Amino acid sequence: MRKLRVTEMGRMNAEQYKASAKTPLVLVLDDVRSMYNVGSLFRTADCFRLAGMALCGITACPPHTEIHKTALGAEMTVDWQYFPTALQAVSYLKGRGYHVFSLEQTVGSIALQDFRTVSTERYALVLGNEVKGVAQEVVDASEGAIEIPQFGTKHSFNVSVSAGIAIWQIAKQLIGL
Amino acid sequence: MRKLRVTEMGRMNAEQYKASAKTPLVLVLDDVRSMYNVGSLFRTADCFRLAGMALCGITACPPHTEIHKTALGAEMTVDWQYFPTALQAVSYLKGRGYHVFSLEQTVGSIALQDFRTVSTERYALVLGNEVKGVAQEVVDASEGAIEIPQFGTKHSFNVSVSAGIAIWQIAKQLIGL
Repeated sequence: MRKLRVTEMGRMNAEQYKASAKTPLVLVLDDVRSMYNVGSLFRTADCFRLAGMALCGITACPPHTEIHKTALGAEMTVDWQYFPTALQAVSYLKGRGYHVFSLEQTVGSIALQDFRTVSTERYALVLGNEVKGVAQEVVDASEGAIEIPQFGTKHSFNVSVSAGIAIWQIAKQLIGL
Repeated sequence: MRKLRVTEMGRMNAEQYKASAKTPLVLVLDDVRSMYNVGSLFRTADCFRLAGMALCGITACPPHTEIHKTALGAEMTVDWQYFPTALQAVSYLKGRGYHVFSLEQTVGSIALQDFRTVSTERYALVLGNEVKGVAQEVVDASEGAIEIPQFGTKHSFNVSVSAGIAIWQIAKQLIGL
């Protein structure tokens, strides 16, 4: 099986990206500390052509060298907006009809494999700080919590990894894969 | 929705982990350069209780401070073995009945959402170098290539992210979620 050359991958350029329809899923970054994680999340958002990202609180914003190291230019293609707090972002999104869910381990959470989207609706996924996770008040402002089942000794995934897993599972439904 | 306390998450301790049945999926790291990625992969492997990891070529092995920073101890729970080349690891695993697939963009690849496992079988997933991906000769030695569909401008995900997505999709079937 011959590996594809970059020119065979049929990717969009930045202009085509801007003009194209987006997957109706927005990421909300609640105090994400590491700029490598922010950059990695931009890159994942570009790959699934997400509708945008809300960078909140202490989350760093582009342009920044460290974000660029892992975003590799995706910080130029993906729409983003800064909010002083994740609560403000959640309120803004809910006001525009988004269904906001936090990726968090809670009482009464929905297991990721059971989460179902409605194709005509728009969604937002809140991702938390590397140590503290999503703030309780932000979880409380969400429509629900989505939890990735875990079977080992560790209590959580790296936030870029858990986001990738959840985005795949949700975007797959929204894109119709 | 109240966030769970760490003590409510019901995780195993290291001894229980060692004694428990594993998800029949092994990761093969073909020249993964970044120790942060190696550590992150250990952490994801622990969370899905994978059968093990083959660290190949230039891939760094534990114990190492930089691996520990992202593995957070998962390098002590997940079984691992070093091989001088990924080809040797693939050959070793095929000799033991594993179905080996490379996570790579190739002619004739299987889209991740279409990949199906057989519950009685064992699998290995080859993950490639951050720049070069999986070596062509390693892809050729695999039973097939698995590709995550992408819709943006970037040509690939971060390797820890793509691995997380693929491991979720495959482990979900093997665990029966």
